Amino acid sequence: MLIEQIEKIRAKKPVIHCITNYVTANDCANVLLACGASPIMADAPEDAADIAALADGLVINIGTLNQQKLEAMLIAGRTANSLGKPVVLDPVGAGASKARTDAALRLISEVDFTVIRGNSSEIKTLALGSAGSRGVDADLADAVAEADLPAAAAFAKRFASQTGAVIAITGAIDVIADAERAAAVYNGDPMLRRITGAGCMTTCLCAAFAACANDRFISTVSAITAMGVCGEIAKEKLGIDEGTITFRNNIIDIMSYINSERIDSRKRIIEL
Amino acid sequence: MLIEQIEKIRAKKPVIHCITNYVTANDCANVLLACGASPIMADAPEDAADIAALADGLVINIGTLNQQKLEAMLIAGRTANSLGKPVVLDPVGAGASKARTDAALRLISEVDFTVIRGNSSEIKTLALGSAGSRGVDADLADAVAEADLPAAAAFAKRFASQTGAVIAITGAIDVIADAERAAAVYNGDPMLRRITGAGCMTTCLCAAFAACANDRFISTVSAITAMGVCGEIAKEKLGIDEGTITFRNNIIDIMSYINSERIDSRKRIIEL
Amino acid sequence: MLIEQIEKIRAKKPVIHCITNYVTANDCANVLLACGASPIMADAPEDAADIAALADGLVINIGTLNQQKLEAMLIAGRTANSLGKPVVLDPVGAGASKARTDAALRLISEVDFTVIRGNSSEIKTLALGSAGSRGVDADLADAVAEADLPAAAAFAKRFASQTGAVIAITGAIDVIADAERAAAVYNGDPMLRRITGAGCMTTCLCAAFAACANDRFISTVSAITAMGVCGEIAKEKLGIDEGTITFRNNIIDIMSYINSERIDSRKRIIEL
Repeated sequence: MLIEQIEKIRAKKPVIHCITNYVTANDCANVLLACGASPIMADAPEDAADIAALADGLVINIGTLNQQKLEAMLIAGRTANSLGKPVVLDPVGAGASKARTDAALRLISEVDFTVIRGNSSEIKTLALGSAGSRGVDADLADAVAEADLPAAAAFAKRFASQTGAVIAITGAIDVIADAERAAAVYNGDPMLRRITGAGCMTTCLCAAFAACANDRFISTVSAITAMGVCGEIAKEKLGIDEGTITFRNNIIDIMSYINSERIDSRKRIIEL
Repeated sequence: MLIEQIEKIRAKKPVIHCITNYVTANDCANVLLACGASPIMADAPEDAADIAALADGLVINIGTLNQQKLEAMLIAGRTANSLGKPVVLDPVGAGASKARTDAALRLISEVDFTVIRGNSSEIKTLALGSAGSRGVDADLADAVAEADLPAAAAFAKRFASQTGAVIAITGAIDVIADAERAAAVYNGDPMLRRITGAGCMTTCLCAAFAACANDRFISTVSAITAMGVCGEIAKEKLGIDEGTITFRNNIIDIMSYINSERIDSRKRIIEL
Repeated sequence: MLIEQIEKIRAKKPVIHCITNYVTANDCANVLLACGASPIMADAPEDAADIAALADGLVINIGTLNQQKLEAMLIAGRTANSLGKPVVLDPVGAGASKARTDAALRLISEVDFTVIRGNSSEIKTLALGSAGSRGVDADLADAVAEADLPAAAAFAKRFASQTGAVIAITGAIDVIADAERAAAVYNGDPMLRRITGAGCMTTCLCAAFAACANDRFISTVSAITAMGVCGEIAKEKLGIDEGTITFRNNIIDIMSYINSERIDSRKRIIEL
């Protein structure tokens, strides 16, 4: 599959408005700057419409959610929708509490998302209205394995068709689908599960790529592949006495100088 | 003293619910992942009961506190209490403002804490209702020195007896006590005072160890020893042109691969 | 120009109260610790007066602003004013939304600032009540270039005279002015634009230096020079396969051990 080039982000420098959690906001801002985008974090209702209007894309991430942030998300989402700007949802922890599940479902019903990216537990919660989530990490039973790929692709396509969004289920194997197409991305490293923010950063990349491309299925596959490749190189760079924080730092470092040629040479994508 | 093995955390992967400040939330999440736990940061009142119920342990940290978070802490604390899950308090900055002191005292009166960990100024504030704190760092006059150990141990035992919690006073020498036992941990490095989050991360480790052990005095000594040993190795690894951030990163790196054998070989604990 | 020595901060260890955004709060706390100060992050209205009173300086940063934080800023600002303590404003994103512009203008009208530090778009917004900001990064058209220095200096002096604050416009060339004096600092590196928090950290340094000096024009030039020099050395240290996060980490590392001799030997300041 021909994927979008990261150089397009560096040329356009899209402003990405993030309404996100405080746990990984720094990582999110830095990975956006690293890929070439210009982040602006603003989560107050009174800020939401203005910032969404000046931005080229919007990220809505429900980690550390509260009522005020949810209000800002709805305002910003509607503004971005009315101006035709891409909006990406990260339903962090959907399924882990009634409040988060309800908030995610409300967001989906009131905002048209361009991309919805989560782990399998979170996406299942949204699609089926129930889940077995034990926190913000995917249940092992929910992770997508090789044998499940056809079923996962069919499930993602169906949910994409219902929502109009590109659906991205990330895990050991990532499954991305719109209503008609599906792909699996094999890039990445198991160590991504051992840092906070890998998912949040991937979501931000989905927004940056979407802000610079017309085909959002391709742009989402591109974002997820870029993250996976940076994760792989980050792991390869890791010295024997280095651990998870150096791994996280390596990812952002690599994102800040990687080019599309290198991503292309390592991409492992199959169309489903 | 025989301490708990970090491998127990890696085997059980306890979910730790953190209601904490936004300054060190990223470090807290990453150190929990590094030791083998699964963090979930959720500080909204509407989330609190559900997340506390699914988690295996709760951290309440009053840095960057506000009324909404305090409400969430009380709800989550009561839920965790009713389900018999360990709850750890970090009274960041108690003594520095009336609001923080009042909040900490209210938390202690309404929630049964398994462990209370702070610096000497903070713990004194809670125990005596007054303090000479000049911020979030312990007053020098308050730091526990060699000669003060018997008095500090007696003080900690008494406060442990009053609260039913294990009391951990961390500093150059760490003093840990329950109503009957007390120990001093000599591990650590002065550079831990030059980064933000050393205390917050230690508190999270106390929760992770408590979630995997029955004896919470031993589990608290184990958590504090693990942090101290990682701090020492982090300092030893530091190159001549490296400074405080590399030191902080080293700590989490080391926590992500250290084993109990290495911690055991370096532990410097005396029973008081 | 003879600048203030960073050793004065390490000797006095001023407590710096920060009411700031959650995106870069960790970097801000760590850079303050690195230069020798003692940060306390507290943004609740009920905390504001007590913490401002015990601190030696106050930072007000309007990133991720909300109504509650704004209230805390006004309370803390008035307290610091009444006690004669330095107060530094970072009008992050002023011009990007009506809410942020209004908040910044209200802060300026109700609090006497010692220093106002922002990029050219932000400072123009405050001075002129309008701006062309496209986010939190300065518009390229607004950046101060060599040819604009006399005009920028005159503009900054005028705004300094109106507000009573030292005005610091940071960018490729930094312009600092009070009502009578102006200087340009050429230290720094373009990579500072590729990380989040460079501006926020600089603002914190302005507060730490101001808390240890009587001449706030000189202390502000000193803070900005220190940050620029650390940025330069951070870039020089960068290995071929290192990127933006290592650059950010290097800055804080270097700040934690740099001395005034080394800053002096690299300073590039001209009086305007």
